[in-house]
Amino acid sequence: MTVGEPQSGVTIAADVVRVGLLGYGNVGTAFARLIDSQAEAIALRTGIELRVTRIAVKDPSRPRPGSARSDAGDRLCDDAASIVEDPEIDVIVELVGGIEPARTLVLAALAAGKPVVTANKELMSNFGTELLTAAEKGGIDLFYEASVAGAIPLVRLLNDSLAGERIVRVMGIVNGTTNYMLTLMSEEGREYSSALAEAQELGYAEADPTADVEGFDARAKAAILAGIAFDADVVPSDVYTEGITSIGASDIAFAHKLGYEVKLLAVAERVGAGPVTAVAVRVHPAMVPREHPLASVRGAFNAVFVEGDTAGELMVYGRGAGGMATASAVLGDLVAAAHHRREETRGRAVRRERVEISPISGLLTQYYLALDVKDQPGVLAAVARVFGEHHVSIRSMEQIGLGDGARLVFITHTAREADVQATLASLADLDVVARIGALLRVIGPKR
Amino acid sequence: MTVGEPQSGVTIAADVVRVGLLGYGNVGTAFARLIDSQAEAIALRTGIELRVTRIAVKDPSRPRPGSARSDAGDRLCDDAASIVEDPEIDVIVELVGGIEPARTLVLAALAAGKPVVTANKELMSNFGTELLTAAEKGGIDLFYEASVAGAIPLVRLLNDSLAGERIVRVMGIVNGTTNYMLTLMSEEGREYSSALAEAQELGYAEADPTADVEGFDARAKAAILAGIAFDADVVPSDVYTEGITSIGASDIAFAHKLGYEVKLLAVAERVGAGPVTAVAVRVHPAMVPREHPLASVRGAFNAVFVEGDTAGELMVYGRGAGGMATASAVLGDLVAAAHHRREETRGRAVRRERVEISPISGLLTQYYLALDVKDQPGVLAAVARVFGEHHVSIRSMEQIGLGDGARLVFITHTAREADVQATLASLADLDVVARIGALLRVIGPKR
Repeated sequence: MTVGEPQSGVTIAADVVRVGLLGYGNVGTAFARLIDSQAEAIALRTGIELRVTRIAVKDPSRPRPGSARSDAGDRLCDDAASIVEDPEIDVIVELVGGIEPARTLVLAALAAGKPVVTANKELMSNFGTELLTAAEKGGIDLFYEASVAGAIPLVRLLNDSLAGERIVRVMGIVNGTTNYMLTLMSEEGREYSSALAEAQELGYAEADPTADVEGFDARAKAAILAGIAFDADVVPSDVYTEGITSIGASDIAFAHKLGYEVKLLAVAERVGAGPVTAVAVRVHPAMVPREHPLASVRGAFNAVFVEGDTAGELMVYGRGAGGMATASAVLGDLVAAAHHRREETRGRAVRRERVEISPISGLLTQYYLALDVKDQPGVLAAVARVFGEHHVSIRSMEQIGLGDGARLVFITHTAREADVQATLASLADLDVVARIGALLRVIGPKR
Repeated sequence: MTVGEPQSGVTIAADVVRVGLLGYGNVGTAFARLIDSQAEAIALRTGIELRVTRIAVKDPSRPRPGSARSDAGDRLCDDAASIVEDPEIDVIVELVGGIEPARTLVLAALAAGKPVVTANKELMSNFGTELLTAAEKGGIDLFYEASVAGAIPLVRLLNDSLAGERIVRVMGIVNGTTNYMLTLMSEEGREYSSALAEAQELGYAEADPTADVEGFDARAKAAILAGIAFDADVVPSDVYTEGITSIGASDIAFAHKLGYEVKLLAVAERVGAGPVTAVAVRVHPAMVPREHPLASVRGAFNAVFVEGDTAGELMVYGRGAGGMATASAVLGDLVAAAHHRREETRGRAVRRERVEISPISGLLTQYYLALDVKDQPGVLAAVARVFGEHHVSIRSMEQIGLGDGARLVFITHTAREADVQATLASLADLDVVARIGALLRVIGPKR
């Protein structure tokens, strides 16, 4: 087999790797186009020619003006299972999304001895342990770099570069939509509803924005992150999750005054010394000190900050979503899988252990709390008494606005989450408290 | 072989990999201590027990109170060549530093079929192509992640994660000393000399700070970066280099006013379309827009920003120096080398090509220029005439100070470096110009 003649005039020998692509939506078409444009350069660099020979789509007869090659039609079929079983296919790229039939297809591919590259967040967050265990048993690669933060190379960072590192905590901005909204609120003083409307207009947020703004997308990514960082079997339902819907421009303005930015963070941290037996995993809006590298992550970008005992602090930053960025990560994985296949080897096996999930109630941190109150004498005394009864000590307080718009904002000293939640429950019973607003946890030094 | 009994009570089988460590200075002792503390955890995760069985030092009889194990003395010798040849040694970790004897030792290790991990910046920047070619011919791993930016995983990012990517430009803050100084100057308004004194006091800068402040350290790293990003044979003498010695607090204050931070950047970029046939590589202080992720990199931290056609913008951030951070990167490489050795495989081969180096004279960007001038009528007209004669168009000008302290600062529109240099030469001849101060290039969008 030769490649390279048309453009470079150079003929080189290359091993052909036949790729079966499952799913031909946004990421799938971007991936097919990318591989078509880069195949020659990759062959020159690696001696491996990647060729997408079959593509599974829902409806092969639908016209596809944006497809990768004029001959795309020849490669299309609607039977993904037949591609997985096809002995003429060497590697499977799963871009179907969702849990079924993706899970069955991936398991079948691994059972057939075919390496799999997937960008499937739902699948890897809910069934990562099952799939990685199947891959390990079969001695087959299962790569999923694109499933957690698009083009950002987290799996390689945590599993390979930090292979000798005791990772302590991982904190990420892993949802571009909410970070775009929070950036608008921070830099332009916009209110939540206005920021959401703009994010929807630009296509960052869906018509129903629930998955983003309630933190569900970040929750799945937090589960994957915890799994990679701690070789732990963590699923989305293990992740304590709060979204950004209660945050207003005034909360962010107050955070600025104190030297903080507000970010929706996915946090996974090791609990206790020695081997990992327990982890804490959560998603919530947080106050991040302005000097912290995560505070500067603007717009729809993602970043993940890693703290290790020896390497210290590391951060990776990039595009966390979008067809092209995701396709780039898929292609990086595919080159690795193809290289391993030729060498008859595979990446380091991953063994996931079920670990204890530390409840949020044990969290120790500082808190920001906003309360809409009646503007009358004695309010502060009544509110402060509730804090004191629950052993939550106030570091600073400020009143913003007057009359019906009166609002008290507090920063606590380090307190226990359980005590803060008890404080909130008692505050809700006070006549003078009209509404409990945003609760933000302040990011502190690693444990 | 069993490991794990003393601490966990669990006994697991592990392949032993015997590591020969060359060099036992700051990084070497940190590495030996790290491997001793992490060997059990690594064995549990990977099934490979890493054991440093021999260490080459200059003087084995010198007392080493901080050494990794009480029995370190048994492992020490002063004959590095004998360790390289020792059939009982599986992998070589080269932390000697400098070019010789490191180069000879690495070549001998590769010739003996032993994978090599090195943190040697001088060696990899000057002889990277020779060594990588030797490694490729022998089918042996040569890993050097720690040689360019400490704990930051650049080689893995550029070679593996972005294996399918057309990389356009790489820009890095790769010298922690100068970034620490520039941060002091930016945040505290300190002058250069005061910032240098503090950096020296804290041990960030040497008594002779030349290698840092003149950009020589960054130059070597720029050559390595260009090599990784573009599979190009680039050496330090290919890199146009300016340091930070001419920058004053007033330059940084003016940059702030315009929305920029000043950073010493190592830049490597692809020139032209198609396969890489020419690259531009340079180190100089630059004006970085405040919203750019590199602008937020503070203190002694390093970061490298990568622009790719498909992945978009990526940045990796972390500790670029220090024994522990470097040791962590070395250990990551060592785990990979040991895994490959067991699997009888190796990482992707790298072929370096000599490419054309585009001269700095062809650079097109905006420029900041500070001039100390005589405070008299007609000065601006005389200066402006010189700019005009060389086709350099002025975007904005401001006078700072009066009398003997009069200074003019300019920002140009996009101009050609050759024209700007000709302007500087003519300005130096003007009677009214007392001194040419800082010249800063403004970082713009990728080409």
